[in-house]
Amino acid sequence: MAKKVKYVYAFEEGNKEMKSLLGGKGANLAEMKSLGINVPPGFTITTETCKIYNDIGKKILPEVESQINSNLASLEKKMGKKLGDANDPLLVSVRSGAAASMPGMMDTILNLGLNDKSVVGLAEKTGNARFAWDSYRRLIQMFGSVVLEVEHSAFEHILESVKDTKGAKYDTDLTTEDLKEIVKKYKEMVKKETKADFPQDPKKQLELSIKAVFNSWNNYRAERYREINNIKGLIGTAVNIQAMVFGNLGDDSGTGVCFTRNPSTGEAKFYGEYLMNAQGEDVVAGIRTPLAVSALQKQAPKIYKELVDVCNRVEKHYKDMQDMEFTIMKGVLYILQARNGKRTAAAAVKVAVDLVKEKLITKEQAILRIDPNQLNQLLHKQFDPIALNKAEPVAQGLPASPGAAVGEIVFTASDAFEKTKKGLAVILVRTETSPEDIDGMHSAKGILTARGGMTSHAAVVARGMGTCCVAGCSDLIISEKAKTLTIKDRGITLKEGDAISLDGSTGKVYVGKINTQDPELSGDFGKLMAWADEFRKIGVRTNADTPTDAVMARKFGAEGIGLCRTEHMFFEGDRIKAVREMILSNTLEARKKALAKLLPYQREDFVGLFHTMEGFPVTVRYLDPPLHEFLPTKEKDIAELSKEMKVSVDVLKAKIDDLHEFNPMLGHRGCRLAITFPEIYDMQTTAVIEAAILVTKKCPICGKKHKVTPEIMIPLVATTKEFSILKDAVVKIVEAKLKEAKNKMAYKIGTMIEVPRAAVVADKIVTSGAEFFSFGTNDLTQMGAGLSRDDAGKFLKEYVAQGIYEFDPFEVLDQEGIGEFIRIAIKKGRGIKKDLKIGICGEHGGEPRTVEFCHREGFTYVSCSPFRVPIARLAAAQAAVKEKMKK
Amino acid sequence: MAKKVKYVYAFEEGNKEMKSLLGGKGANLAEMKSLGINVPPGFTITTETCKIYNDIGKKILPEVESQINSNLASLEKKMGKKLGDANDPLLVSVRSGAAASMPGMMDTILNLGLNDKSVVGLAEKTGNARFAWDSYRRLIQMFGSVVLEVEHSAFEHILESVKDTKGAKYDTDLTTEDLKEIVKKYKEMVKKETKADFPQDPKKQLELSIKAVFNSWNNYRAERYREINNIKGLIGTAVNIQAMVFGNLGDDSGTGVCFTRNPSTGEAKFYGEYLMNAQGEDVVAGIRTPLAVSALQKQAPKIYKELVDVCNRVEKHYKDMQDMEFTIMKGVLYILQARNGKRTAAAAVKVAVDLVKEKLITKEQAILRIDPNQLNQLLHKQFDPIALNKAEPVAQGLPASPGAAVGEIVFTASDAFEKTKKGLAVILVRTETSPEDIDGMHSAKGILTARGGMTSHAAVVARGMGTCCVAGCSDLIISEKAKTLTIKDRGITLKEGDAISLDGSTGKVYVGKINTQDPELSGDFGKLMAWADEFRKIGVRTNADTPTDAVMARKFGAEGIGLCRTEHMFFEGDRIKAVREMILSNTLEARKKALAKLLPYQREDFVGLFHTMEGFPVTVRYLDPPLHEFLPTKEKDIAELSKEMKVSVDVLKAKIDDLHEFNPMLGHRGCRLAITFPEIYDMQTTAVIEAAILVTKKCPICGKKHKVTPEIMIPLVATTKEFSILKDAVVKIVEAKLKEAKNKMAYKIGTMIEVPRAAVVADKIVTSGAEFFSFGTNDLTQMGAGLSRDDAGKFLKEYVAQGIYEFDPFEVLDQEGIGEFIRIAIKKGRGIKKDLKIGICGEHGGEPRTVEFCHREGFTYVSCSPFRVPIARLAAAQAAVKEKMKK
Repeated sequence: MAKKVKYVYAFEEGNKEMKSLLGGKGANLAEMKSLGINVPPGFTITTETCKIYNDIGKKILPEVESQINSNLASLEKKMGKKLGDANDPLLVSVRSGAAASMPGMMDTILNLGLNDKSVVGLAEKTGNARFAWDSYRRLIQMFGSVVLEVEHSAFEHILESVKDTKGAKYDTDLTTEDLKEIVKKYKEMVKKETKADFPQDPKKQLELSIKAVFNSWNNYRAERYREINNIKGLIGTAVNIQAMVFGNLGDDSGTGVCFTRNPSTGEAKFYGEYLMNAQGEDVVAGIRTPLAVSALQKQAPKIYKELVDVCNRVEKHYKDMQDMEFTIMKGVLYILQARNGKRTAAAAVKVAVDLVKEKLITKEQAILRIDPNQLNQLLHKQFDPIALNKAEPVAQGLPASPGAAVGEIVFTASDAFEKTKKGLAVILVRTETSPEDIDGMHSAKGILTARGGMTSHAAVVARGMGTCCVAGCSDLIISEKAKTLTIKDRGITLKEGDAISLDGSTGKVYVGKINTQDPELSGDFGKLMAWADEFRKIGVRTNADTPTDAVMARKFGAEGIGLCRTEHMFFEGDRIKAVREMILSNTLEARKKALAKLLPYQREDFVGLFHTMEGFPVTVRYLDPPLHEFLPTKEKDIAELSKEMKVSVDVLKAKIDDLHEFNPMLGHRGCRLAITFPEIYDMQTTAVIEAAILVTKKCPICGKKHKVTPEIMIPLVATTKEFSILKDAVVKIVEAKLKEAKNKMAYKIGTMIEVPRAAVVADKIVTSGAEFFSFGTNDLTQMGAGLSRDDAGKFLKEYVAQGIYEFDPFEVLDQEGIGEFIRIAIKKGRGIKKDLKIGICGEHGGEPRTVEFCHREGFTYVSCSPFRVPIARLAAAQAAVKEKMKK
Repeated sequence: MAKKVKYVYAFEEGNKEMKSLLGGKGANLAEMKSLGINVPPGFTITTETCKIYNDIGKKILPEVESQINSNLASLEKKMGKKLGDANDPLLVSVRSGAAASMPGMMDTILNLGLNDKSVVGLAEKTGNARFAWDSYRRLIQMFGSVVLEVEHSAFEHILESVKDTKGAKYDTDLTTEDLKEIVKKYKEMVKKETKADFPQDPKKQLELSIKAVFNSWNNYRAERYREINNIKGLIGTAVNIQAMVFGNLGDDSGTGVCFTRNPSTGEAKFYGEYLMNAQGEDVVAGIRTPLAVSALQKQAPKIYKELVDVCNRVEKHYKDMQDMEFTIMKGVLYILQARNGKRTAAAAVKVAVDLVKEKLITKEQAILRIDPNQLNQLLHKQFDPIALNKAEPVAQGLPASPGAAVGEIVFTASDAFEKTKKGLAVILVRTETSPEDIDGMHSAKGILTARGGMTSHAAVVARGMGTCCVAGCSDLIISEKAKTLTIKDRGITLKEGDAISLDGSTGKVYVGKINTQDPELSGDFGKLMAWADEFRKIGVRTNADTPTDAVMARKFGAEGIGLCRTEHMFFEGDRIKAVREMILSNTLEARKKALAKLLPYQREDFVGLFHTMEGFPVTVRYLDPPLHEFLPTKEKDIAELSKEMKVSVDVLKAKIDDLHEFNPMLGHRGCRLAITFPEIYDMQTTAVIEAAILVTKKCPICGKKHKVTPEIMIPLVATTKEFSILKDAVVKIVEAKLKEAKNKMAYKIGTMIEVPRAAVVADKIVTSGAEFFSFGTNDLTQMGAGLSRDDAGKFLKEYVAQGIYEFDPFEVLDQEGIGEFIRIAIKKGRGIKKDLKIGICGEHGGEPRTVEFCHREGFTYVSCSPFRVPIARLAAAQAAVKEKMKK
């Protein structure tokens, strides 16, 4: 005989561990029941039932039906009422509830069990005819739209017309008679639309409602929600059937929501709102102003005490701040829902730290409580949440660099620079940015681009600076010539000077100005970070190109610089002239002359970094981008440069043309530049070592003697010989300079591992002398997976939607594929040199999942943009704690 | 006591195995000596001595000096003459000779031992004053320019002025007195130039000469030669010091060269030329016409017999055709040199086959005798070697596709097409070619591009068609607008209609027309190929996109199609219209409509291929290039298309703009197109399977029933899921079509491994159903090593010169790096499916070293362009033979 499958669980039969079977809501209701909390009774149909229902062609198995019936019978018994009873009907709610929270994404039916007869009985029993008829009206409306799929507007239309006729402003102004008329009209309309009467049989109502919830699992809204929130592996939704309780049965009834702590600040103070003689919708409708929950203490001290008591019990049980819904029905307190409360980042930190103080949780648990990404909120400007709620976004891009920015639109970097000098707040809007735009990007409050992904130039630079950026917003058409910004499908065209607001944390773009709030770092934040540092096993460094970045990163706890991109130093002020002179030189002599002009700048840069980092390691990556990135592309700029350099426009254009590449990503850049033009790296080596010698002797900035261990990093190495040739060149200069200065400073020479070939010959690269590896996961992803980060936007969305990649591989490291290169390289590299130092300096270095991967694979450190340092520290700690827990 | 090192070997002390120590020439002279052949006696200073000399700062160790002296003493004893003897001086030659042949790359000094006194003795002893003074003159001239570094022209100047004064036309017209005057003037000039007398001490002459040879090892010419010919790992040159013998001592003396077989045809007939009473230079000077060696039979039958006898002995000893130099001095035959003779490809094949017939070598040895690349000569048009010798190249590009081409310059594909229709032979000259140019490329006799590497579009397409192509000729500036071709640094500008000649085997470009010879395949060629097929272990397929290609490839012995690039089919005639219509469609419906137009063409293509291949496997690769490759780029063409498609120019440009990619290599192409537009591959699947069903039933071309096993290959797969999604789509259509046709044909679905990520997840790809792998080594090299084939030309030369890559990785597979991806993928793939079919279809598939690699790594087959099929067959056989020999 086949084993009997249990499809339906009474609340008494479940617990919080059964989420995947009972859904989050069902498991929680069951858990609360087990705590002895007064939850309206009910039962849950399992998520497996939903799967079977959908698998066998939307049919409910007879066994399921019979289990529902027997649970319904016992519910009726508990409540002493019967579904559809003409005199004292049991009313139930039917609610969806999957294992993962999907708020508002699926449908709910309330007041189920009313019909033409039981409505009368309810009116009599409660002595509140208006309540009964309003409940019936609501049932028909919900059931009609959700289950029978009648247009919602058809109901609204009837409601509005009756209100108009009766001169009623609010729903609450409607009388019992008005409601009866509405019910009549609703039923007529439903019959007309569905060619059938509104079902009077409550059992039929229940069956159809259950099916509707099951069906809603696969509706567009729900699927999109799962896609957007990356919810995978769920089999379906559970259905919760629960006795209705009413807060609008008189002055001894009421309804409210409360938090065990303040969800906004985290303060350990009971917090909430309620309304007496009201239903949940009334609170939302905003007609009556809810009272602070503290008022309940006077209004109903016994209930208040019970509520506080329940809340404390539940919080202690779940060991986290709770968000609860309650209803008081005729003096009896029912808890409808309790769940871990959503909270701001500030509250999350405070609650976690407080719970440790209260000895409810351990430091490890506190660390696991915070979503590292949420820390962004603490580190960047945010929009005022109330103002944000009212605003409607006009376009959606990628959340490239978090924060909120408000300002006037400008279309060129120079405008951004000029207008900022005049004290204006500007948003730089570009099709894409290029290194030439760097000054303008620095000036702007926010950056908006139409093209490019999470690791496009705009995104990388913005994150590095902590500037808000929305990138790859393909809804935009930007005319830099006409200085207009058109939002496709919206018919909105903005011009220079118009105000916009960007939310870099969500990628949303708004027209007009939205108020912002400044970030503030609390002592609790510091405490949490200190705990994180206690537990984490891997180092956290920063990607910083300037002393300003470095100062910020140290404030955020960076333990060194993992990546200093020297090319960014080449764009500032007069330097670009010398760089261009070098590029336009045709002889070694001329190139050396131009490079000599850059040397003092570079030396000064490194002095600044060494000074700022006060002995922490500084990894200097040598020039990486192709030379054409330093030349202008626009006619106007070329003409200007031609004058400046005294080189004819034709010669200039020929040079630019000569440097043009079909696939610059795979072109003449990185260490390849130094193989053909060794003098470039020679200048950089000279600058690094001269700066290091200076600061060890007497820092030109502070006069102190710093300890310095320069780490020189060669980019884009693909072969052993590239590395050894360039290493030899570095050593030659460094040794000569050290000898000259009688200095015995230690220094390291290592390589980026960013070309796939390098990963598979990593053993040979170590043999040829590499002292450290730093994985450049941006390029490793680009080349390894054959994806241009600037172009892949066109299809990557589709790829993630189809599950080809679980996440955008430029946001979250592709651990299976690109991770395999890393595993191979580490195995080969450490096979030769057991203690090989291994880091990551791609954009992934500050992404929590990737940090966990790095922890697991034995990295020495991760390096990320300054603003992601705290995130990486927390993620690293979480990885260590999780590992410890597994053991 | 330190072991005594032997720095100098008498010829009697060496043998042919000692090449690396004695150099090729020294080892050969020793070997001949050991065969009892009358070689003028002498000794060899080892290559190690050269290395030490250069290592210790150009000094000759005392031990070396003493060993030289004792060998010189025994040489003097053998010859019964003394160096510098005033009455009967010993004269010697000093010649370089490294382990690898470097003809003419290093310096030689003859007649060493003459001075103001011994010249008189020589005159008396030989009774030939003119000979003695001419020898002295030659010594001063050679020694002066080579050792003393006096400008060669200074000697020429004196010689010419004396000849003018005396009214002498040729050197031979000069009298003894004239020569004495010249010697006097030479010595005066040398003294003036070098501030020292011409050294009279023969020992000093010898020492300086030896040093000069050692120095010449590192001169520019020699280094360039080694670089160009990829000669590596040698430590230096040996120096051979040998007694001089003279062919110009009277009518019983003479000199000549001979081959044991005809080096041009391979015919087994003694072949050569000689002159009596002459020196080697006289033959070269071209004043007297040398006689065929057969004439010697009459003139000196004994000598002739001896020569033939020696030749036979040497050939039998070396078991290969010999190229020999001989001198007859006063009736005595001396052999100066014997070496394996250089030969044409035709001769190489004939000699190898004949030697097998003569049982001198085995079939395996015959197979190893032929350089597979040399077969190109047999398969393509070649320039008349005499005409070629006289022509001076004006530019050097990459030898992208072998053969010789002569024609008028055209600058556009349409001009090529039009002019060819009119019967003209044209050379298509472009900065770079694109798929739009395909018709013009088909028409042209040859293709010349200024940009792009060995696997650029022009190169790949040209090789596929067997058309001569010189690519990436960076010496050119091409103005397609002005229709001019300027050769940098030459001041040559050619215009449309001017004639040029291209040598696709060397990459050289010539102005004007050079006569060409047609290729001819002999029966011996067929025999050799049959032997190759007997021994080789791996299959050889071809890359063919059209029945024409396929027919040619079958003629060359291809055993199937390893790569049919379906995109090439999209460009022909009306098809491009439908393709463009598809690209410009905004809806699925419209796209499907356009694709429906392509279906019959594609089906017909596949019918043609299946018919041609008569049951051999056909691997069809689905659409690979990014869609923008199908759209025009020039204003004019866009305007035309706009009219044709009835789409505004603006819309068209916007679309082209939208499709633009920064790194198209890493962009939206390959299977990515089918993930976003599944209907494209669906159409291709339909075409493949419908064609297969047709030909198995009744071939529409020949009416026969063919056996067909279509192999469908998905390009650019990087992830498991891409493959499984696309495989499922293929299977769905194929199964439906087979069911409908009641056909149970077998078919295979596999993938290219060309994205590095795919290589490291190869196991998972096999698990998800891949039935074969084909390595796309072009893209694997591009992505794996991060090299854009279209851009890398700028630095790859430098990379190869510095030994970073041993060869251009687009020509010869980078076995260490890219090979490692292949090894990883094979290990992972075969770990799951032991008999996984593995092929290669990149351009490397026909490159001998790569074929050997594929053999070693257990490939099932290699696939290459039709014209490389014989090369691959031979290379595969060589790999198998070499492996067998090792066991």
